[in-house]
Amino acid sequence: MATEKTIAFVLYPGCTILDLVGPLQVLSTLAAIRPEFRVVVAGERLETWETDTPLWVRAGHTFDEVPAPDVIVVPGGGAPTLRAMADENLLAYVRTATGLTTSVCTGSLILGAAGLLDGRRATSHWSMLDVLPEFGAIPVRERWVADGPVLTAAGVSAGIDMALHLTAELAGLDMARAVQYALEYDPRPPHGKPDWEQAPKDLYTALTEQWVREGLGDHPLAGRITARLKPVS
Amino acid sequence: MATEKTIAFVLYPGCTILDLVGPLQVLSTLAAIRPEFRVVVAGERLETWETDTPLWVRAGHTFDEVPAPDVIVVPGGGAPTLRAMADENLLAYVRTATGLTTSVCTGSLILGAAGLLDGRRATSHWSMLDVLPEFGAIPVRERWVADGPVLTAAGVSAGIDMALHLTAELAGLDMARAVQYALEYDPRPPHGKPDWEQAPKDLYTALTEQWVREGLGDHPLAGRITARLKPVS
Repeated sequence: MATEKTIAFVLYPGCTILDLVGPLQVLSTLAAIRPEFRVVVAGERLETWETDTPLWVRAGHTFDEVPAPDVIVVPGGGAPTLRAMADENLLAYVRTATGLTTSVCTGSLILGAAGLLDGRRATSHWSMLDVLPEFGAIPVRERWVADGPVLTAAGVSAGIDMALHLTAELAGLDMARAVQYALEYDPRPPHGKPDWEQAPKDLYTALTEQWVREGLGDHPLAGRITARLKPVS
Repeated sequence: MATEKTIAFVLYPGCTILDLVGPLQVLSTLAAIRPEFRVVVAGERLETWETDTPLWVRAGHTFDEVPAPDVIVVPGGGAPTLRAMADENLLAYVRTATGLTTSVCTGSLILGAAGLLDGRRATSHWSMLDVLPEFGAIPVRERWVADGPVLTAAGVSAGIDMALHLTAELAGLDMARAVQYALEYDPRPPHGKPDWEQAPKDLYTALTEQWVREGLGDHPLAGRITARLKPVS
């Protein structure tokens, strides 16, 4: 592949940093081995921003500096992600990927707000999956979901799995395996797989309603999203 | 637990950012639920630093501002981690944990250089595991290794597993499970487990020798580490 492909990660204040860093580590390792891939972190401004952890972060480029990348990756989060859904500059940038638009966790709500999920199968953090039909999407409970030019991952850590799949799509299976060795990605959750029947749904209903209030305030989307957050028993 | 416990992540320029962010996301989620845990990111200076990806980062505190934390977490990386092994200010801080000193990936080499691994079982990124005896450590090929006041994790992504184990130690199994739901940590590597018999050892021997040259130059440790990097066939 002689042609350069640009993969742009969208940064915004307060996002869940593992949503971004999981796939960023995967795809930056690809780019370190295969320089025809260029990976950038892009934000509206080159300011140092808080995350949902005590780490502060800054993008390397503004949106204007990286127009129309081949691939865009959008991380999720709590209230800040809901806030980003009403940020027209950010939504406009998210629409500019020439190839694939991808998301991790509640980043898929941003893709939905940008109008990219209409009629498409998509996923999100398990606690917000029921919100996707608000944007015309068909919610799918999988680790990642590919549908045409859209690739969405489930919550937080699922971005690593999604990015390894994407690496294989972009550069082949051997390259995805090389990245997997580099990251020593042989996961061993010390307490086993989560029992999804026991997931704390009521707790997250309250939490996600709070995110919507904090992030969207009286935006017209707020009420429509909250109405979809009732627990599915 | 009424007593506040401080968990300090050590930041330095050029570290592998997923080494830091994996356990940071886990332990920050614990702290969000249980405010008696305080999580900070500490560096020598409050400057914005590069990472091994196109994301720029900044600590929230200087080392001086967070003296003698209960737990210290040290991320790894390539040449910048080798460089950090010769940074006396950083080593001095790493020695100050009152409870547990932990590392991810080649961060264990920093623990070794700080004199914390003598006689202890420890692990590291698979490509640097043979270096650990240089510091009197007994290398163990496991996802994470607990030995008294030292807890070391294998390469990059292993920090997530290690931090979930640590969460259970600090706050109980139910809390570790709550964090696991939050991060939707139900990993599904799309191409299966790595076949470690096929790991590209020769490639990494060359790569790690380059890290030592770049990071340590003519420091006395450089030759001793390089001598241990011969491929184990």
